[in-house]
Formats: sequence, structure tokens, C-alpha cells
Amino acid sequence: MSATIKDVAKHANVSIATVSRIINKKPGFSPETEQKVLDSIQALGYQPNALARGLINKDTQTIGVLFPAVSNMFASEVLSGIEEYANEMGSSVIVCNTAEDGERTLKYLQVLSEKRVDGIIIVSEYIKEEYYKALSEMKIPKVLVSSISFEYPIPYVKVDDRHASFSAVNYLIGKGHRKIAMIAGNSTDPIAGVPRIEGYMAALRANGIEPSNDMIIHCDGFGHKDGVQAMKDIMDRDMDITAVFASSDELAVGAMSHAIRHGIRVPDDLSVMGYDDTKLAEMMIPSLTTVAQPLYEMGLMAATMLFDMKSSGAVIESRIMNHKIMERETVKNLL
Amino acid sequence: MSATIKDVAKHANVSIATVSRIINKKPGFSPETEQKVLDSIQALGYQPNALARGLINKDTQTIGVLFPAVSNMFASEVLSGIEEYANEMGSSVIVCNTAEDGERTLKYLQVLSEKRVDGIIIVSEYIKEEYYKALSEMKIPKVLVSSISFEYPIPYVKVDDRHASFSAVNYLIGKGHRKIAMIAGNSTDPIAGVPRIEGYMAALRANGIEPSNDMIIHCDGFGHKDGVQAMKDIMDRDMDITAVFASSDELAVGAMSHAIRHGIRVPDDLSVMGYDDTKLAEMMIPSLTTVAQPLYEMGLMAATMLFDMKSSGAVIESRIMNHKIMERETVKNLL
Repeated sequence: MSATIKDVAKHANVSIATVSRIINKKPGFSPETEQKVLDSIQALGYQPNALARGLINKDTQTIGVLFPAVSNMFASEVLSGIEEYANEMGSSVIVCNTAEDGERTLKYLQVLSEKRVDGIIIVSEYIKEEYYKALSEMKIPKVLVSSISFEYPIPYVKVDDRHASFSAVNYLIGKGHRKIAMIAGNSTDPIAGVPRIEGYMAALRANGIEPSNDMIIHCDGFGHKDGVQAMKDIMDRDMDITAVFASSDELAVGAMSHAIRHGIRVPDDLSVMGYDDTKLAEMMIPSLTTVAQPLYEMGLMAATMLFDMKSSGAVIESRIMNHKIMERETVKNLL
Repeated sequence: MSATIKDVAKHANVSIATVSRIINKKPGFSPETEQKVLDSIQALGYQPNALARGLINKDTQTIGVLFPAVSNMFASEVLSGIEEYANEMGSSVIVCNTAEDGERTLKYLQVLSEKRVDGIIIVSEYIKEEYYKALSEMKIPKVLVSSISFEYPIPYVKVDDRHASFSAVNYLIGKGHRKIAMIAGNSTDPIAGVPRIEGYMAALRANGIEPSNDMIIHCDGFGHKDGVQAMKDIMDRDMDITAVFASSDELAVGAMSHAIRHGIRVPDDLSVMGYDDTKLAEMMIPSLTTVAQPLYEMGLMAATMLFDMKSSGAVIESRIMNHKIMERETVKNLL
């Protein structure tokens, strides 16, 4: 994964704001600090984006962020990155919890429009026609996070879900697993459902294993209780597997939890792998091996793009962030 | 715990917004829906607060919320309650991540003042003199959540930390534990530190056990890594204990994690109890017995108070929310 502004800040032992200001050639730093940051930028090979400049005065210095749920760990880490960058740019963040409710989402877009926000970031939401209509009328920058629209031209920040899922399953195969079930979450979800299933199947095929639909467990959603239910199904069907790959950390943890309660040892009897790398993964016992989406970074990047679009007026290209296998304790090496 | 608007909504199988509107005698519902909600209110004995009415037109319909960290589970559940109620009242929520940094907090207060927000909710922050000065100048309602100020008259919503801590330790003693260590987090913290230690000591004394300072582990903060470190200390000192009570769920989970990794079985060899009841507690394996603060409710209540103050102009009394022991799997019954 290439170096980020956060890495530079850590390396130089200064705040992200300081790095940002030095990149933007703003005054108020000692030559030592400046040199330290420039050295860190060079040492890490960091390539800054052109950061937003010259915000027009009629700005409200407020952006809106729409989430399907404010209280899940995924959303709050993304929000944290957005808020950090917005704060550096002197802007405030209005949070909107859509609860995956279409009417509520439209109402929020209406409110944000009335409040004349400078831009909108939409996290993990599928863009329906009526949303796009409302968004276009606003004529302000918008960026998607962990989402993508084929119908409408909105730039996005996400990992490549198909690729990340492929990497995860390939990792399991590399550890000697060949009988791998997938807990797919809501498999009709165009972002977190379909592409991750495709990545799973592609990885199996690439390793000469024919995927079977029976090995894919479909759930209502991506939460803990869905994972519990999925593992119940797996055990009821007495599936002959050595590993499970789940489409979210919460699914993985729910599955682990049910398995462990029923005497299945993780990873001795069953390996488990998640997707997201929320803080939950690290705190679990055993800690969860997972595919990391750089959530905080994705928030930071989305906000950067939003302000770049605002200052330049140009349409910004979408970004595919690098995913990464986080090796922890839930995958057994069978080799 | 008394019934809440959320309970009523669930019982009547309608949204919180619907319950709120029916309480406020707003039109647009069938007689059936109205009756169903009124029945649920009666069945559950729910007592609604006088909800905010007649917002003055010069309002910006925006409130600000200050947090020490947006991305922890505690904060995000409180935020979720605030956002829910604000949305019902037609207001937006600006989130401000203070990172426990005084300068940053003051800058945020300045920004919120310039944006003419209608009210401010401050979560888990100690109110310094300069914050209060900035807050007073704004002449708008403010409410504290999980915090309290002895110096300055700001209404608050919190549990009684001393009492909740007492209840937790008393619960452990009720299960036959008498050698109980406490992982106290940052023990100088005036909210989450001192009162919880006092509650722990009071519970021991009330049960004829003389507390010992050696049994109280002091940490830098209330996070997972602090809990890991605390358990390391406990094991290094080879403490003769049967149970550990921690001042936060993250501390408890960190402690559990280190213990389990070193062959200590929870709860067979050591019982562990947390504080907060974040989603983490429920998701852990084994699931964590803890003292619940009703986080979502606290957010909802703080927002209700803020809007009540706004509409009535009166100072609202503070609220002590009920805590509750959540019995799960990490405490062994020794009796």
C-alpha cells in the first residue's frame, strides 16, 4: 500500500494538519519542521494530491455525509477520516443517518440542499434514480465511498471488492484450504454482495477448484446476527469444510461465535476470515484474520476529492484504494 | 428501566417519528395507528417529555455535537440517538471530533458559534473554564452527556457512575467473588475514573471487604491496549484474584484477551466484568457481562432536553439514566 498523509504525519511525528499545510506551502512552521516533513515525504515516497485551495467566499463551509447507519464501526471509521480532513479545510460535517430508507434519504438531500452545503459524501449507499435527480439539482461536488454507480457519473473511493475477495480466498488456498464456504451477506447487494461472491468463485477456479453454489450461504444482511444464523446453517447442513470466508467482519465474528459456542475450535477445527478490518477484528479473541479496507484513509480521500472538485471545478477521477490481508489468528496453516 | 419512545415504537410496530408525532398531536395518521400507539404507551407506562414545539423561525435548524473521538463505539451509539431525535425535529447534526485537544475544541466552539447553531451537546468531555466562557457567549442551550460540571451550570445526562460501579462490584460479590481487582482506566478522570473507583471501594466495604490500593490498576486511558497492559501487570504481580472489574468494555476486552492468550480461562479461572455495554460486549466470545449505560437513549434524551430548552427557554433539570447489569458469559458463579 502506498504511503498516505497519515503515514507521513506519523513518520515525521507531526499532525496531519501540519503535513497538509506544508504541502500547501502555508506559513507558520519552523524550517526544522518543514524539513522533517519533506524528508518523511521523500522517505515514504508519498505523492500528495493537489489539495483544495481558494475556496470561494460564498461557501457555507459545511459538507453533508450520508450513511446507512451511523453507529456501526465501518461507518464511524470512515466518518472519522472525513471529519479530520474537513476540519483541516475549515469545514464542518453534517451527519445523516439514512437507515437505508429511501424517503428519509430524499428528505436529507432536501435538507442539505436548503442548507446549501458545499458538497456531499455518500457512504455505502446504492444510488437510486431519485437520489441522483436530487443530487444533480444541487450542482455541488459529490463523492461515493464504498459504493459505485454504473448509471450515474459520480466519482467514488472504494477498494476493488472482486479483487479483495479474490485475494482473501487465494490466501486461504495458499494456507492449504480447498473446502471453503462463503458467508455472502446480502448476496443481491451490488457492492458488497455480488462482486465479493464473484471474487470468491474466481479464486477457487484460478486454483483448479470448481465452486459450488451449495457452499455459498446467503443472509439478510452483513451484521453479527446474520453471521450467527449462517454458521447455524453450515452446521445443520454438516458441511465438509476447513475454512469460511465472510463478506464482513461482523458476519465472520457472528459465525465464529456460534461455532465456538458449539465446541468448534477456531482455527484448529475451522479457519475463519473476514472482510473490512474494523476495530472489532483486532479486538476479537482469537483476533480475526481479514481483508483490510483502509476505512479511515478512504474517508480522508473522499473528503480530499470533494474539496479538490470544489476548488478546481473539475471532475476528479475515482480511486481504487489498496486492500491488504491482515494476518491474525483465525486461519490455520494446513501445509 | 422505564419505557422509552423507542420501546413504544417497537411495541406498536411504527417508527419513532410516528410516536413522536402522535404524542405531539400532529395530523396525518389513521385512527388505527394512533390507537395502536396510545395503547402501547399505556401498556408500557411510557411518560413522554413535553417535546419541543414552535421553533422560532430564525433557527438554523442545526445543532453541534462535540466528541473526544467519533470512531469509538461509545460515541457512535450516543450520536445515533442524538441524530435520530434531531432528525425528527427537522434539525441537522454537525459532528466535531475534539481529539481531547483543548485548542481544537475551542476552534470548534468558534466555528459552531459562527454557524449560529441552535444548541450544543458535549459528550464525555470535561468542561474547562475557557470552554465554558465560549459556550456562555453563545447564549444557546447546551447539554452534557456522560459528563458533569460542578463549576458550571450545564444540565447533563448520565448514569450515576459511582452507583453503577457499586452495582457491578456488588453483583460480583453476589456471585461469591471477594478477591476483585479493578482496572480503573485513567483514574484521574473526574467522570469515568474517580467515581467508578469510589463505587468499587464502597461496594467492597458494604460487603465487609477492606479495599486495597494494590488491587486497583491505573492506566493511561480506557482503550483496548490499556486493558492488555493492565492484565499484564496483574499477571506479573501474580495477584490472588477471582475477578476483575474494568471501567470500560474496551478495557475489559483487552484484559480478557491478554489473559486468554496466556492460558487463563474466562470465566473458569477468572471472571471479567466491563462497563458501558457497547456492541463489543455482545459480540465478544465469551460475551462480556457488563454494566449497561443506555447509550442510544442517552443521546436521544440529551437531544430532547436541548430542544425542550430551546422551545421553552427554561433550564431543564439534569437526568440520571438507569444503569443495568447485563448478565452474559464472563462471570462465574462461585456459590
